Order: sequence, then C-alpha cells, then structure tokens
Amino acid sequence: MSTSQIPLHELEDFALELARLAGNIALANFRKSIEISNKDAIGFDPVTSADHAIEQVLRTTIVERYASHGIVGEEQGRTDSLSPYTWYLDPIDGTRAFMMGSPLWGTLIGLTYDDSPLFGLMVQPVLEEVFLGTSDASWLVKPTSRQRLKIRNCTNLANAALASTHPDLFDADSAAAFNTLAAQCLLHRWGGDCYNYAMLAAGFVDLVVEDQLKDFDIVPLIPMLQGAGCVVTDWSGKPSLRGGKVLAAATPQLHAAALAALA
Amino acid sequence: MSTSQIPLHELEDFALELARLAGNIALANFRKSIEISNKDAIGFDPVTSADHAIEQVLRTTIVERYASHGIVGEEQGRTDSLSPYTWYLDPIDGTRAFMMGSPLWGTLIGLTYDDSPLFGLMVQPVLEEVFLGTSDASWLVKPTSRQRLKIRNCTNLANAALASTHPDLFDADSAAAFNTLAAQCLLHRWGGDCYNYAMLAAGFVDLVVEDQLKDFDIVPLIPMLQGAGCVVTDWSGKPSLRGGKVLAAATPQLHAAALAALA
Repeated sequence: MSTSQIPLHELEDFALELARLAGNIALANFRKSIEISNKDAIGFDPVTSADHAIEQVLRTTIVERYASHGIVGEEQGRTDSLSPYTWYLDPIDGTRAFMMGSPLWGTLIGLTYDDSPLFGLMVQPVLEEVFLGTSDASWLVKPTSRQRLKIRNCTNLANAALASTHPDLFDADSAAAFNTLAAQCLLHRWGGDCYNYAMLAAGFVDLVVEDQLKDFDIVPLIPMLQGAGCVVTDWSGKPSLRGGKVLAAATPQLHAAALAALA
Repeated sequence: MSTSQIPLHELEDFALELARLAGNIALANFRKSIEISNKDAIGFDPVTSADHAIEQVLRTTIVERYASHGIVGEEQGRTDSLSPYTWYLDPIDGTRAFMMGSPLWGTLIGLTYDDSPLFGLMVQPVLEEVFLGTSDASWLVKPTSRQRLKIRNCTNLANAALASTHPDLFDADSAAAFNTLAAQCLLHRWGGDCYNYAMLAAGFVDLVVEDQLKDFDIVPLIPMLQGAGCVVTDWSGKPSLRGGKVLAAATPQLHAAALAALA
C-alpha cells in the first residue's frame, strides 16, 4: 500500500480505534480529582494529565501504523515529515468544560493530505458519540447506530442559531464584529467548544463563529463539517487551515450573510 | 397518611416516577424537528411542544396522587391550594440548549412545605442522571448506581470555577457586579442553565451566579444544593425563594467572598 493512497475504510477504522483509545483515557479522568497545571503565565490555560496522556497514546499508535506521517498536536507541537499526510490532534478540546464536569468537550483527530483536510472526527465518550467525515459525507457513529449528518437549511440570519465558546476569545475589534452579527441572529449561546461544530453538522446550530483558534482546533473538524454541507472559512472567506478567526455556516447563503455582518 | 407527613422514601419514589415521565417526553422530542413558538413579543423565549407536554403530564400525575397540593409551573402558572405542600415544575430548564442539540438542560421538580424547600430534583435523561436531595443529603442517581453529592472545599475566589448561563440575563448594574466577581475567580464559563447547579453540588463548579431567575428555576434546586453542602441565597444574602438574583456557593467562606464582590 502506498502511503499516498490509504483507502477510506482503512483510515476510518484506524481513526475509530484512535477515538476509542482517547475516549477510554478521557473517561477514566472525567469527574475525578485531576491535577491542573497552568501553561500560560498570563491567563489561565489548564492542562490536565488526561490531555498529555491522550496525545501520547495517539502519537504512539499513529507512529506504529504510519511511521512516515507528520503529526501536529496541542501538547507536543509539530513533528514534521516528508509524507504528504499530517495528523492533527487536540486531545481534549474544551478543557475548561472537562474540568467543570460538563460533557461538552471532545478529542479531535484529523488527517490532511498535502495540507488539504482529508478526514476528521470528534469523539465525545460520555455521550458515546463520534462525529466523523470526509468532504463527501459525514456521520454520527454511536455504539449501535450510524446516521448521516446533514445541516439545517437555514439561509438567513433572522432564523439562525449562533454558537460560540466564550467572549474572552475575542479582542475589542472582533468582539464588536461578533456582536453586530449576534444581534441579527434568532438566538445565541456561549459555551460548547468543539461540540458546537458537531451540532452545526447535525442541523441544530446554524452558525459557529470564533476567534483565536489553533490549527488543531479546527482542521480535524473541517471535513466533517463540509461532508454535512457546511461552509467553513476565516472571517474574510478564505480557508481556515491555520485557525484564527473561523466562520462555519450551515449554507452558502447564511455564510455570505454572516461574512457581511462581520465585515 | 396525613398530607403534612409524606415519608421521604415515598416522596422520592414518586418524584423519580415524575422524572421518568418527563425524561421520556423530553427524549422523544430532543434532536427532532420541533415546533418553536415565541411567547415573548420582545425578546426570543422559545417554547417547545415538549415543554407543554411535560408540564401537563407532571400536573396530571401530581393531581392524581396528591389532589390537595398546590402547583407552580413555567407554562401553566400557579394552582393555589390550602395544602402546605406546593410543587414547583420547570419542564425544560435550558430550552435554548435543548433546541441547539446540547444535553445541558433538565426537568426541575421541587416540593415546598409552608414555603420552605423540602425536596427537589433535576433530571437529565440523555445522560441518564437525576440529581436529587433534601437539605440533609443529596445524591446523583443513575440507572445502576447512586452516589452522594458533595461540594468541593473551595474557600476563596482565586481558586473558584464560576458558571453562569448568559450575559443577556444581567442588566447593566448586575453585569458590572458580575464582572467584578468573575475577574477575581480562577475561571469562568457561560452556558449550562440548571446543569451548572448540578455540577456545583457534585464538586466540579464552585460558584453559580445568575439574575432574572424565576421561582421554578431555583426552588427545585435548593434542597439538592443544600444537601450537598452549598449555600444558596440572593445577592444580598437572603433566601432566594422568589428567583431573581441568585448566588450559590460551595462553602460559606466562598459565599461571603462572592457576596462582598457583588456588593
């Protein structure tokens, strides 16, 4: 098998095994007394032992199977390679939710080919949900069911449910733009982290708008979102492969309206 | 049996049956296409058919069992009685979360005796969790386990995790007070509705601070919170039986510090 032609079914089986490994570690640490260290001298950016343990097991498992692939992870940074394949790992997206007992966090696992998102998933082990996909099709995989993900056909802001994680992730300028957009939407909720994107793909949220994302926060979600019909870009309409300002919308019409409101 | 002396085990069994009825209706409507009507001409206060159906079945079941009791519910208002017992019902606390696919909502069922909270529960059927209690003891009841709820021993704001539902629930004055408090806490998250109080009782959140609550939003939660060790008052330290501004804290020391910050 050439490394440039991993069959999709093989990739999905492998990624689901990674999701299972990550979920087991996360569940063993969820709602337990966990050690919290502070990796940001200025703000408060908690890192749990679960974060570190998950990324380590994912990296080890990927290297055993696909030794040539690159890996980008939240905790251990970038391992470059000559392969066109690079894995993007966020061991626990939503660490604060995790710490505060909420199940709205997930492990993100994505694969790019020549810097283009190929496949990705988000696993939420408390709810036993894996949201996965390619740009062709996306699925919610549960222990005994598998169901196609499809956006809600929302085409204007006045009918749109908007989600975003926390106002502190916006600076003064981006907060003003966000508030202009939010005021035109039907309803808006804070909180949610990666789970907001899953609900967008599933058709219960219409817009997710965020700032200050890292590449590993969004790259694993892009194929799943596109496969459900979403449009995902930065706030100027360009691809959002480096994180930063992200706009994910259920439909092209809604995406255009949100872009205009944010401008 | 006198209506003024319902044994606690009988009350708990009955309330768990109410929780099961409510959960079945909620689950049947969760992540389905639901009809949303707008009961507030100014803002957006969604009412789902699930809200109405749950309150109706709870009222019917209560009347069948305890015909003399009073009932206060979100959708149908107050049914007065001569009995010292009054039930407080919030069929779906967190309707917006419910609409947007998040499992962080719950049905609240509480009972007061002579206007004093006697027993209460919050049920989250997706997670199969019931948080219940009296002021003596509180429990997380799951299908195959039962575990005592106990606060985390957090005594100062600098170590406290603070949760609240949405900034729009504060007016300009209360927002300023809230922001003063939030700036002194270790971390802060928006979102969560009733689930924040459950996580406070379980020891993963240390403070919940909100404004503009209704009586049925908080009365059912007070016994469960007190039974886990929490202090629950309004922002002036008085009982919060009418809703409005609510401050729930893990410990008396933290409660005093938060009261001072909000003043």
